[in-house]
Amino acid sequence: MRALARAITLVERRDPSIRRLEEMLRQDARVPGVVGFTGAPGTGKSTLVDSVVALLRKNGQSVAVLATDPNSPFTGGAILGDRIRMQRHALDTKVFIRSMGARGHLGGLSLATREAIRLLGAFGFDEVILETVGVGQSELEVAAMADTTIVVLTPNLGDSVQMIKAGILEIADVFDVNKADLDGHTRVMTELRAMLSLSPKAGWKPPILATVASRQEGIEQLWDAVLAHRRHLEKSGQAQALTEQRLRDETAEVAAELARRRAREALDKDPELAKRLFDDRTPYRTAEEILDRKR
Amino acid sequence: MRALARAITLVERRDPSIRRLEEMLRQDARVPGVVGFTGAPGTGKSTLVDSVVALLRKNGQSVAVLATDPNSPFTGGAILGDRIRMQRHALDTKVFIRSMGARGHLGGLSLATREAIRLLGAFGFDEVILETVGVGQSELEVAAMADTTIVVLTPNLGDSVQMIKAGILEIADVFDVNKADLDGHTRVMTELRAMLSLSPKAGWKPPILATVASRQEGIEQLWDAVLAHRRHLEKSGQAQALTEQRLRDETAEVAAELARRRAREALDKDPELAKRLFDDRTPYRTAEEILDRKR
Repeated sequence: MRALARAITLVERRDPSIRRLEEMLRQDARVPGVVGFTGAPGTGKSTLVDSVVALLRKNGQSVAVLATDPNSPFTGGAILGDRIRMQRHALDTKVFIRSMGARGHLGGLSLATREAIRLLGAFGFDEVILETVGVGQSELEVAAMADTTIVVLTPNLGDSVQMIKAGILEIADVFDVNKADLDGHTRVMTELRAMLSLSPKAGWKPPILATVASRQEGIEQLWDAVLAHRRHLEKSGQAQALTEQRLRDETAEVAAELARRRAREALDKDPELAKRLFDDRTPYRTAEEILDRKR
Repeated sequence: MRALARAITLVERRDPSIRRLEEMLRQDARVPGVVGFTGAPGTGKSTLVDSVVALLRKNGQSVAVLATDPNSPFTGGAILGDRIRMQRHALDTKVFIRSMGARGHLGGLSLATREAIRLLGAFGFDEVILETVGVGQSELEVAAMADTTIVVLTPNLGDSVQMIKAGILEIADVFDVNKADLDGHTRVMTELRAMLSLSPKAGWKPPILATVASRQEGIEQLWDAVLAHRRHLEKSGQAQALTEQRLRDETAEVAAELARRRAREALDKDPELAKRLFDDRTPYRTAEEILDRKR
């Protein structure tokens, strides 16, 4: 566990030794199941994730939770929640929980998360749960990284209207109406069903589940829906395509990061190049020149 | 105006012709003043920006407003607001207003905005106003691009507490308490003053202004504070350093984008390389190999 935690820290810090880590772990590479939980704050995502973790542990599976908060460059809050959760599972070496903040580095969280998933696979974890904290673009990123994206709603009209606006309909593989003991849950489910029936999407039809995470209700059915979606991906050949697409994306992001670093180094070490950039205001020409230099 | 709008569209689309555009506009390059407005939704930022635009036009200056919304990959809402605003200034060729959405492309908005600022300078605009829509990381990005960052608050305790949490204290060059006709505005200003007196920051002390944007009150004083900050940057030599830092950052981001594109192209065109990546799961090795190839 300590080695894994350290490895993820290297990945978060974008330490150059990740390159060696990759080679070291190459033979152990396997692909964990990746399930994303997304939804507005207050939908009870964390409680829901905890319930799923409990279910998976009961089934004898190992599980890692990566809670990502791309909107906060500071990790204080996340780390606090992290510690409280970690205490609960402190003696269980089959549960790994980690909060990942953006550390003020745009694009970095997505890459670090992808690499953390790869590390978790190499360390033998069966399932990885991605949990988004906060709002905004995070949903789309999680959807790009997860095999199955669960959109969590509550019995509240605001949520479902919001959802259409943000285009979340397209990224959901499974809908979950959590806090289904509250008034209005049938209305939300009816609304969702009506909306989905209008969707022209062929193939997988996202099921709509209901849970009361605080009472562990509906969790097995929710996980069954995840497994059904996974079987659909396998059968249709999309599973392999997704894995390959993710490796492509990760390679492109690593290349971007290496190029960014090369550009900064070149400008630091070559005052003439920097002076020409400042005089001419030509970032494109300068960037091309740097990338085309012999190494 | 039409040429400028088209040029910004090329930049947003990451069209390869930006490279040529850069060369074409090189001789016209000049640096506009860049002022960022940031703050929580509901603080009246848009009205405030409109009042500042009116003031600048009265002073005979040309001004461009870039409203950036990194949290929305979809531009529908922004475009609507855009059009309403545009109508008001439709006949004034010295006002340019543009909404920029994230288009689902992380990191892209920041780069596109930097380049749009450079284009606006080449097209002769005196001032560029960056307005953030939504919440989250956008504040930090705007602060990195603007010479002067104005943090807008309202007479509401929630705002000021929020502000400390998000670390906005560090990015503010000027504070503006808008809606200063509401109860509680003196309390917010007192709180802010107390907070700032605790700040160990040397050099520029962010002034705290009060405006009622809906009634055009306090706008001239606010702009005077911006100009005072600008003079401070010039005198202290920070203005030149900021311009250079921005060109460095832009070059690094352009290099990252070029590398990302090269990686995708290489994997598309070289099935063997792609197969090795999928078999070995080695994005780092693959990315390095692609960047080190001869062009």
